[in-house]
Amino acid sequence: MEAWRMPRVGVISMTYARPFTARAFPLFARMRDADMEFVELLVPEADEMEPRAAGAALREAGLGVLLTARVNAMRDPASDDADVRAAGISYLRHCIDVCAEIGAPLLGGPLYGAPLVFAGRAPRPFAEEARAKRVAWVAEGLAEVARHAKSAGVALAIEPLNRFETDFCNTVSQALELVRLVASPACGLILDTFHMNMEEDDLPEAIRLAGAHLLHFQANENHRGFLGSGHLDFSPICRALAAIRYTGPITLEPFRRDDRRLGVPLAQWRPPERDEDADLRRSAEVLRGLLFAAGARRC
Amino acid sequence: MEAWRMPRVGVISMTYARPFTARAFPLFARMRDADMEFVELLVPEADEMEPRAAGAALREAGLGVLLTARVNAMRDPASDDADVRAAGISYLRHCIDVCAEIGAPLLGGPLYGAPLVFAGRAPRPFAEEARAKRVAWVAEGLAEVARHAKSAGVALAIEPLNRFETDFCNTVSQALELVRLVASPACGLILDTFHMNMEEDDLPEAIRLAGAHLLHFQANENHRGFLGSGHLDFSPICRALAAIRYTGPITLEPFRRDDRRLGVPLAQWRPPERDEDADLRRSAEVLRGLLFAAGARRC
Repeated sequence: MEAWRMPRVGVISMTYARPFTARAFPLFARMRDADMEFVELLVPEADEMEPRAAGAALREAGLGVLLTARVNAMRDPASDDADVRAAGISYLRHCIDVCAEIGAPLLGGPLYGAPLVFAGRAPRPFAEEARAKRVAWVAEGLAEVARHAKSAGVALAIEPLNRFETDFCNTVSQALELVRLVASPACGLILDTFHMNMEEDDLPEAIRLAGAHLLHFQANENHRGFLGSGHLDFSPICRALAAIRYTGPITLEPFRRDDRRLGVPLAQWRPPERDEDADLRRSAEVLRGLLFAAGARRC
Repeated sequence: MEAWRMPRVGVISMTYARPFTARAFPLFARMRDADMEFVELLVPEADEMEPRAAGAALREAGLGVLLTARVNAMRDPASDDADVRAAGISYLRHCIDVCAEIGAPLLGGPLYGAPLVFAGRAPRPFAEEARAKRVAWVAEGLAEVARHAKSAGVALAIEPLNRFETDFCNTVSQALELVRLVASPACGLILDTFHMNMEEDDLPEAIRLAGAHLLHFQANENHRGFLGSGHLDFSPICRALAAIRYTGPITLEPFRRDDRRLGVPLAQWRPPERDEDADLRRSAEVLRGLLFAAGARRC
């Protein structure tokens, strides 16, 4: 087993608060104390925070930062409506500018758009012509975004989501096809074990398939609880990351809450009900321990 | 290891066709030839098929039958709208009458309603008062349905669905709470490994928790492919079924298709593109083999 550089481990802001405004900046110190090395922030809407101020607060706390784009039904690179597609591309270009302002080297997320359940849209069949047109629109749009990203020195990472969150890109093989179509050195992919658990035949094999295209990884339990509270087997997942010599960031996104009464919506984001810092630190310990066992070393 | 009676294995009609009309009755012989012992049918809408004719065709093919209710936004026991709730209860009472006509001993499904993605509804938070009211409406409504079911000699089975398909009941512990509230000997639950894979901490433990309340089981891969094509571990699942001496029906629902191109919606039902009878038969062999290994015997 050959040693390789230990990936950095961070947390998504939603684990602590949403929306994440300047009032939440004191949380950065708590994240750092919970052994987080970076924060994955949602690209702020205009009224949420000032990117340069956020960048300064993050640097002060000793944290790196990545951004996640939030496409929606009004800004959707896969929309039938040309204006909505243009708004989607314009939004993603804006997200890259925010990366530059905040100091984030990577913009990730379901950059292709086509949201389902969170946009209140039901899946429906596409005729072949409509499907092919949609793929071409998305590939063209993301190629334009990738040119802007490349000139700004920002990496783009396309994330496949589960079948209920999008009807465009659900698997690593689909995401790799999209990366090939975008054909930019700035464009790779994100994999999230929460979504992979629903869509892939074999999680370690999917990681190996992504190989050098993998720019960002999200280590989540099957139900988004803390690591060890669900049924995913992270040992072979970490060995697959070792096999591809993955040195990018790994985000923890444990925002499932303890309230499990009837009629409490699990897919609806809910704020934490208690201090979960110790749980988060333990999740990072599990992950770093398994990465270590797979050969990862701080260097 | 004590022997126990081998559960019957069947298939859901959607694996072959949807809608399933009288024109599809010749498929029953193919299902039987693929070693299926029963068919799980969606309760037919008025224009789809005549229940007594379906029952006769099933008996002729030597197949048992179970029914699954289809709640939706217009007939929803969890709706805010009293008329929609009443339509939901009236629909479920009708479903029980159809069970009697077709010869099905069990009616299952997400009987509580509250559909999300397939109804084009996004999850949203509920205030505590609204949540409690909704739970009470559903429990009252299902208690009425259970009285009708009991007098018709039909069992009711409540199925928890994943977080994207409903915001009312996602886990076995929530379903057990609802069964307790309905408080009828006619009412138990269904567990489906596809949904459990997304929501439970531990699948075998969830089965043990359900215990004698488990009336119906659905054995599906994490992505609804054929058994063995995904990452679920069915050996400990079968041992858990052995531990609770489960002798009810087990349905296979492999309706994921091979077409994995970008922009082909996975959550949208699609017809089979090839003859999958051999794959289905092999899935049943895997399941029966693992049940046998766990002590199940035909007797």
